[in-house]
Amino acid sequence: MARKNAFYAQSGGVTAVINASACGLIETARKNRDRIGKVYAGRDGIIGALTEDLIDTSKESARDIAALKFAPGGAFGSCRYKLKGLEENRAQYERLIEVFKAHNIGYFFYNGGNDSMDTAHKISQIGRALGYPIICVGIPKTVDNDLPITDNCPGFGSVAKYIAVSTKEAAMDVLSMSRTSTKVFVLEVMGRHAGWIAAAGGLAAERPGDAPHIILFPEVAFDQEAFLAKVKHTVETQSYCVVVVSEGARYADGRFLADAGSRDAFGHVQLGGVAPVVAQMVRDKLGFKYHYAVADYLQRSARHIASQVDLEQAYAVGEAAVKLALAGKNAVMPVIVRKSENPYRWGVGEAKLVRVANKEKILPKRFITRDGFGITAAARRYLEPLIKGEAYPPYKNGTPNYVRLKNLPVAKKLGTDFVV
Amino acid sequence: MARKNAFYAQSGGVTAVINASACGLIETARKNRDRIGKVYAGRDGIIGALTEDLIDTSKESARDIAALKFAPGGAFGSCRYKLKGLEENRAQYERLIEVFKAHNIGYFFYNGGNDSMDTAHKISQIGRALGYPIICVGIPKTVDNDLPITDNCPGFGSVAKYIAVSTKEAAMDVLSMSRTSTKVFVLEVMGRHAGWIAAAGGLAAERPGDAPHIILFPEVAFDQEAFLAKVKHTVETQSYCVVVVSEGARYADGRFLADAGSRDAFGHVQLGGVAPVVAQMVRDKLGFKYHYAVADYLQRSARHIASQVDLEQAYAVGEAAVKLALAGKNAVMPVIVRKSENPYRWGVGEAKLVRVANKEKILPKRFITRDGFGITAAARRYLEPLIKGEAYPPYKNGTPNYVRLKNLPVAKKLGTDFVV
Repeated sequence: MARKNAFYAQSGGVTAVINASACGLIETARKNRDRIGKVYAGRDGIIGALTEDLIDTSKESARDIAALKFAPGGAFGSCRYKLKGLEENRAQYERLIEVFKAHNIGYFFYNGGNDSMDTAHKISQIGRALGYPIICVGIPKTVDNDLPITDNCPGFGSVAKYIAVSTKEAAMDVLSMSRTSTKVFVLEVMGRHAGWIAAAGGLAAERPGDAPHIILFPEVAFDQEAFLAKVKHTVETQSYCVVVVSEGARYADGRFLADAGSRDAFGHVQLGGVAPVVAQMVRDKLGFKYHYAVADYLQRSARHIASQVDLEQAYAVGEAAVKLALAGKNAVMPVIVRKSENPYRWGVGEAKLVRVANKEKILPKRFITRDGFGITAAARRYLEPLIKGEAYPPYKNGTPNYVRLKNLPVAKKLGTDFVV
Repeated sequence: MARKNAFYAQSGGVTAVINASACGLIETARKNRDRIGKVYAGRDGIIGALTEDLIDTSKESARDIAALKFAPGGAFGSCRYKLKGLEENRAQYERLIEVFKAHNIGYFFYNGGNDSMDTAHKISQIGRALGYPIICVGIPKTVDNDLPITDNCPGFGSVAKYIAVSTKEAAMDVLSMSRTSTKVFVLEVMGRHAGWIAAAGGLAAERPGDAPHIILFPEVAFDQEAFLAKVKHTVETQSYCVVVVSEGARYADGRFLADAGSRDAFGHVQLGGVAPVVAQMVRDKLGFKYHYAVADYLQRSARHIASQVDLEQAYAVGEAAVKLALAGKNAVMPVIVRKSENPYRWGVGEAKLVRVANKEKILPKRFITRDGFGITAAARRYLEPLIKGEAYPPYKNGTPNYVRLKNLPVAKKLGTDFVV
């Protein structure tokens, strides 16, 4: 194949290390200049491709590209935008081809989660369906850790580390004051459909009795009676109780706890926030003083406490994506393979996009304790290696010195607009 | 004075570095064994003294005491318990003297904030009032940074660093997705009466247009119209808007925004949480998609991202407290003195407890921008040195390896109970 340019886009919720994947990809592409021309990034993800709003990463210095390893957020912008099927919206795909042709793009790299791998898979088919030859490689990224086949998802290890560390620290605070102050502390974490992040809170515990005492997973139907009994027992025996609750915690009938129907002064249903719902339940039924924290975006952007293993894996999948593309592999995604557990060793394998797209991996039963409120030793063996090592960013004046790219646009070649 | 033992207690809300003060105090006392016998810590603060529940810190190894520099929470337990005046509750003071006498305690060190310095001041007077000679030294500690005289309070620098870093990171996340996702992000921070912590969020900004775009201080009456106009303008010009809001943000009539009257499904007033109130206001009036985070205890226990300057100052006031006591100074507190701003140099001075007790230092007007929504260059000059340096703790298996003391009790000598 003659030398083609590459297109790279970030998609969906960003992570503390998605830019490390971008770094791995761009640095590897630059080492293969004989076969890959320029790497163009989509401004705000796939929207950048549809609107011909491309960023010329070749204008960035090697130093700035290397610094992407340390920066959270999405350096080129990301988006939540799902392509429809080819039959439903053929115009989108024709537009992509138009842009790809205009900019001599022969490689398409899509860095995202479940939905994004669906999009990548659709695009990988346009060569056959619409006669435009392109090599499409997905790059896994999601804090939720819910992609199948890959042992874990880059992005997860760092949020897991943040939640484990934060749970441990807050628990020490609460314990030290529990005699006269807060008895129950509730930490709300992400994971709408899968409890991986909540499970990571369990890594805060080193010994029996340690926090967190209760984890509420989306995978386990919420049983208020059992929950309150456990809170009560924990406060009575440990003097305090720390609860890590997934935003996706739900009742047996599927209703989210977060939708419990808090209303503001005007009677509007109040959106979001499972932590206040759980905390209020504790106060109303047990009378304990509570506090709650909602980590929200802090958890997935906490580059300052990123996991070294996660960082290395994020870089590796970016690098591997280029190698797969250069090997002519279409419609694939590099995956993390666990080669051994103790000591932890990993490598990079590959999976077909069709096997990854739109599938969610939830916590297996064997990772959840019988009472439904904790993680098992097996879960700990799986999780612990992923949070190891502290990949500290450089600092300047007390805060991390995160790179800002120039993000210069590629001159447009098409005279046409496309409305997204 | 013959060799006496010392009593040390932690009081009020704990910080990421209050144990560093304990470390400074105990290590310095150990260096002066000829004059100070043992250091007894109150289990759960002053309650430990009243109930004769003392911890023998001499049973802890030098290594474990040194490791206190790295551990958040209160290593000996803290409490919220304010002593009444001598006239109102003479029995409390007589009990303290009974315990002090029984354990040959001649030095009283109290590590806390405003209320605690009031307690320390009262105790410093019992020598004269009740004829028991004791040297009482306060040790400043508060994340709120609201003690007078001292240039800043140990504990504040670390929470300030956490909030500055978290604001910066979350803002990068929000910005990168603002085209199709969250437009307004609200971070709730501590500081019921003073906006120092909220102000620290301002350190996240490096250039004009950077987040946070709006800070809501307790010192500035909340003006909904001006706030919403600024949110709207910021989203229109920057594509996103980050708001840091103090839990103490209030209306001109003194009502807290957090008390805006959200009610749960049963009509109960929902407690706490100014972030959801502000976020909902933005959605209802402007229609922007929002997210919010409530840092709560995470911010004041975040030892993993503690400020090196804060750590050194916390240690220094513990050390200085012993030196003041050995110099025979009663009813004083070591303070941080800013010797120069650029380069930042500091030292330790002293203040009389009576001048510190029950006084609150709020943000000066010159630290708040004219529109009331930001910090000035003067504020930045004051704040920035306090968050400098990363005092990372040691890690084990991916989370910080925080010491746990043995906390062995001192044998009781009194046959009497005291109900607190």
